[in-house]
Amino acid sequence: MTDLPAGYRALDAKTLADYLAKLKPIAARLGGSPQAWTIEEVGDGNLNLVFKVHGPAGGVIVKQALPYVRLVGEAWPLPLSRAHYEHMALSEQRRLTGALVPEIYHYDETLALIVMELLAPHIIMRRGMIAGTVYPKFAEAISTFLAETLFHTSDLALTADVKKAMIGAFSGNTALCKITEDLIFTDPYRIAKLNRWTSPQLDPYAERFRGDGDLKVAISRLKLKFLSSAEAMLHGDLHTGSVMLTPDDTRVIDPEFAFIGPMGFDIGAVLANFLISFFSQAGHEESPGARDAYRDWILATFVAIWEGFSAKFLALWETQAKGDAYPSDLFQGPLGAARLAGERQAYMQHLWADTVGFAAAKMIRRVLGLAHNIDLEWIKDATVRARCEARVLTLARDMMVNAGSYPAPGAIIRAARHFDQWQPPLGG
Amino acid sequence: MTDLPAGYRALDAKTLADYLAKLKPIAARLGGSPQAWTIEEVGDGNLNLVFKVHGPAGGVIVKQALPYVRLVGEAWPLPLSRAHYEHMALSEQRRLTGALVPEIYHYDETLALIVMELLAPHIIMRRGMIAGTVYPKFAEAISTFLAETLFHTSDLALTADVKKAMIGAFSGNTALCKITEDLIFTDPYRIAKLNRWTSPQLDPYAERFRGDGDLKVAISRLKLKFLSSAEAMLHGDLHTGSVMLTPDDTRVIDPEFAFIGPMGFDIGAVLANFLISFFSQAGHEESPGARDAYRDWILATFVAIWEGFSAKFLALWETQAKGDAYPSDLFQGPLGAARLAGERQAYMQHLWADTVGFAAAKMIRRVLGLAHNIDLEWIKDATVRARCEARVLTLARDMMVNAGSYPAPGAIIRAARHFDQWQPPLGG
Repeated sequence: MTDLPAGYRALDAKTLADYLAKLKPIAARLGGSPQAWTIEEVGDGNLNLVFKVHGPAGGVIVKQALPYVRLVGEAWPLPLSRAHYEHMALSEQRRLTGALVPEIYHYDETLALIVMELLAPHIIMRRGMIAGTVYPKFAEAISTFLAETLFHTSDLALTADVKKAMIGAFSGNTALCKITEDLIFTDPYRIAKLNRWTSPQLDPYAERFRGDGDLKVAISRLKLKFLSSAEAMLHGDLHTGSVMLTPDDTRVIDPEFAFIGPMGFDIGAVLANFLISFFSQAGHEESPGARDAYRDWILATFVAIWEGFSAKFLALWETQAKGDAYPSDLFQGPLGAARLAGERQAYMQHLWADTVGFAAAKMIRRVLGLAHNIDLEWIKDATVRARCEARVLTLARDMMVNAGSYPAPGAIIRAARHFDQWQPPLGG
Repeated sequence: MTDLPAGYRALDAKTLADYLAKLKPIAARLGGSPQAWTIEEVGDGNLNLVFKVHGPAGGVIVKQALPYVRLVGEAWPLPLSRAHYEHMALSEQRRLTGALVPEIYHYDETLALIVMELLAPHIIMRRGMIAGTVYPKFAEAISTFLAETLFHTSDLALTADVKKAMIGAFSGNTALCKITEDLIFTDPYRIAKLNRWTSPQLDPYAERFRGDGDLKVAISRLKLKFLSSAEAMLHGDLHTGSVMLTPDDTRVIDPEFAFIGPMGFDIGAVLANFLISFFSQAGHEESPGARDAYRDWILATFVAIWEGFSAKFLALWETQAKGDAYPSDLFQGPLGAARLAGERQAYMQHLWADTVGFAAAKMIRRVLGLAHNIDLEWIKDATVRARCEARVLTLARDMMVNAGSYPAPGAIIRAARHFDQWQPPLGG
């Protein structure tokens, strides 16, 4: 078990009420007396305690780290310091994106606890997509979130000393990075106790992936990039379970996996979850084709996310490039501007290729690794589910190994539509 | 001026003797009484005080950081913390390479002072190469130094938590990195007060480089890699002035620019200085062709450095890969081994391409930037010198922009021989 800092204790509804009562601004926000507050532990994530607190005047969310993985228990220790990194990342994201993340009301380092804005009537995006809900403003919001957080923490925006200080500040978040390194970049490609998949239907896929040299080289290159590319501050776990939203308002939550890593990892995470949702629709629609319009929305949004991100990132580069990379002195005059404009396109093309690879890694881990998505898990018929999953795997494998065949989002869209019609052979 | 830590004071011969007398093991090593010691300030580097101390029984070197750049004076402040990073890197290099670096006898963080092994009769390698001295064991030694230090501090050897701790530990050495970022990756390609070159002979070259869009894109890509690729612990300033040697013994000194960066930067630094030395021979030989055998040795050594490094790095990867990158679990059995062997070759090819680019950057900065090499500076006839320098610039420009045309050291050797015969047009 991790050494606990003096003063740390896991709170429950009773002790939390006492704690919050002593925080005047929080107590005022809730209103009334602590006896009038309702406190509900709602933690449906895998790692932490999450309390919803309501009072006569308003509500707050309280998130507290436990010294172990909540889902697994004390057998899997996990340092409380993740609350420190989450708070640091959330503060930075708030500064950079305003209301695209929850407001922080209070942070307690000793208790590894954050009191923040209660988002209502927001729901977890993944649940909304399972229900077939269209979010017309999501692409705009998430592309802004990605562009603002990635650009402003990169060498294009920061001087090297500030960037290195940020690298240093996040360099201790190794336990959370390790989860990613193992569960995304390693386990799905080897025999590992924690792996699980729809069996026996996907047994042949799991076995083939474990013997696929091209795929294992490709995932290892991505892992090396994850380990050694200090490009920008990442959210680090940016799937549709880390988004709470309404049709009008989008918020990104839970950045406890934050560190300085390759930008494509965050962008790829969002796009991977859109592809998983796309392929899962066959398991959720009332009758074949009933979700076709929703499928169209998913794929159109997939394209809009990249295009929105790309346009915004480039606009920031053109107007706010105060960092040490690509110094403006070197690209003066019309010729210099034209040359730099061309280089920006090359940069985005390179970032897209990274994004395709990381998206593929995120897709595969959700089918063959430990942590699955309810998009697929909630499909009760194992054969229907396995068919969806086999499509996810087959597209992802091709994206990872043949990233060059997908030079733009449109190529992925076309392949997704193709594989969605494909009847995959299943085991068993 | 940088804030000085309490207790810091710059030492002189008198105060240094008093200081050393109180360090029993050092005093014992010197022997006799302090009155019997001779202390000489020999700092011929640009940044620090360096004292040679001799006693009846033995000698030591004392290196003390000043709160400014020695060469320039108090107008250019530079933090004392560089001694901290130098000590940390030197300790690590000593652990990894044994007697390829000086032994550390004492470190004083407050005084920013390191007492270390006196190397005698070693001389600075650059001076030896100007004199035409052959060092038959250098390639073997430096390729070992590069392979051991780069491999063992990379993700191939370290688990991610240890690697990130190292990144964090060096993340404060920003002032020294900034010197590199400005003087190597930026200034030579723009009008900058500190730039100098042999004028008017090289004026057309300097002007052409400042207007060369391809070159400025290429140097900017290298700069971005320097800023964001956390591959391994670098020496950070590995030119032939950071090597002291005899024909039998090689030592690498002065790692105060150490940080976690792209491996090709260190390898490229060594190779760049060999190419500069090669082109400078025309300015040092007694009669045309008198140094032809020495030229052959330089170029053969150039090849041997890369080939030795490559073979040793690969051997370490094959036998000591305990890091998180390319996990062995994923490459089991004869097929897995064959696939990983192929990937290792691809990795080395990629590293070679980086090396070619960084070598080119190091060559250009020594001709058009602030800090020149005595290899070229000591050529008194400005026209002869400019001719050598124009050859350095022309090969380097092609290496940087067309790195793909130099897939192996042999291609650079052939180009170097070609340009050595070329009569460059000069300005003025």
